[in-house]
Amino acid sequence: MDRSVAFWFEFASTYSYLSVMRISSAAKARGAAVTWKPFLLGPIFAAQGWTTSPFNLFPAKGRYMWRDMQRICAARGLPFRRPDPFPQNGLPAARLALAAAEHGRIETFAQAVFQAQFGTGADISAEPVLLDCLHQAGLDANLLDRAQSPDIKTALRAQTEAASAAGIFGAPSFTSGPELFWGDDRLEQALDHAAARTI
Amino acid sequence: MDRSVAFWFEFASTYSYLSVMRISSAAKARGAAVTWKPFLLGPIFAAQGWTTSPFNLFPAKGRYMWRDMQRICAARGLPFRRPDPFPQNGLPAARLALAAAEHGRIETFAQAVFQAQFGTGADISAEPVLLDCLHQAGLDANLLDRAQSPDIKTALRAQTEAASAAGIFGAPSFTSGPELFWGDDRLEQALDHAAARTI
Repeated sequence: MDRSVAFWFEFASTYSYLSVMRISSAAKARGAAVTWKPFLLGPIFAAQGWTTSPFNLFPAKGRYMWRDMQRICAARGLPFRRPDPFPQNGLPAARLALAAAEHGRIETFAQAVFQAQFGTGADISAEPVLLDCLHQAGLDANLLDRAQSPDIKTALRAQTEAASAAGIFGAPSFTSGPELFWGDDRLEQALDHAAARTI
Repeated sequence: MDRSVAFWFEFASTYSYLSVMRISSAAKARGAAVTWKPFLLGPIFAAQGWTTSPFNLFPAKGRYMWRDMQRICAARGLPFRRPDPFPQNGLPAARLALAAAEHGRIETFAQAVFQAQFGTGADISAEPVLLDCLHQAGLDANLLDRAQSPDIKTALRAQTEAASAAGIFGAPSFTSGPELFWGDDRLEQALDHAAARTI
């Protein structure tokens, strides 16, 4: 019996912020487990000919997204500030997250990064910001070196390929068995699916 | 005090089906009114360089959408069948809907069209299908002529331009005062916003 959801998120993704901040409590309430899977949307977007976020490519959609995020964050009591530039470079944070996972701290680290980025508008590719996030997660600064190791780099590349193979085209996404769910709006549905699974 | 939501929908849109089937009861429960606004997504997609639905242009997104619709329709007890081809030509139905609105029957007519299309897979640009929908809505077959009148054609064009001017980029969308909400997932939020409005 595997009542677990794989939680696929990208560090530069606005809607991933929403799920990062609530997935654990929502999963606990349903008796489901969560596997945190950072990946990169860049290569997935590039494969369909996009060179940046669709929120930049399609201005009406972008304008809407910022207002939607503002409203949702206000309703949930989450601080929200639009980072500039957007999207940020989430690569260093994603590698560090895999290193943090080796110490069982991926959730705390990821929450610190998302809060820095979308709560205060900080640049999450800047080393001082990442060092502060490591510190908040109780992790050592030497994880910056670990994050540059070939096996972490390979692991992140493999995870991004796995996301693509699972049919993932945006973030956050959730998989439960063969089912894919896209967007913070589907978090409950994904968790309910996992909680009801018997295989 | 205007507690009303403008409900922007496109007849070929899968997710519009979901909202068409439930917006009235959801609005009633909140004491909000609904203004039905059929429009065409084609010109709005074309303006950003798309020649068909994004669900066709981006296959991973398309595959996901069909599964997502299947799951949601099953959960809501709605029949669901994928029409072929997709997207269908929603122009004749949109014009007829404006003609039906002149008789206060736009909701019943629209529901009949969406049920024919996504409940049974019928071609909603075919005259026999549309005649049957008119009949179900208690409307006369001569609305087919009325739908071809210059003022109906102009009204649909104007409504599509108004959608674009309101920042709409997909369907269904909802506007309440200056606020835009996109997708069946935001229906409740839009209605709550309208119900709370005092101007």
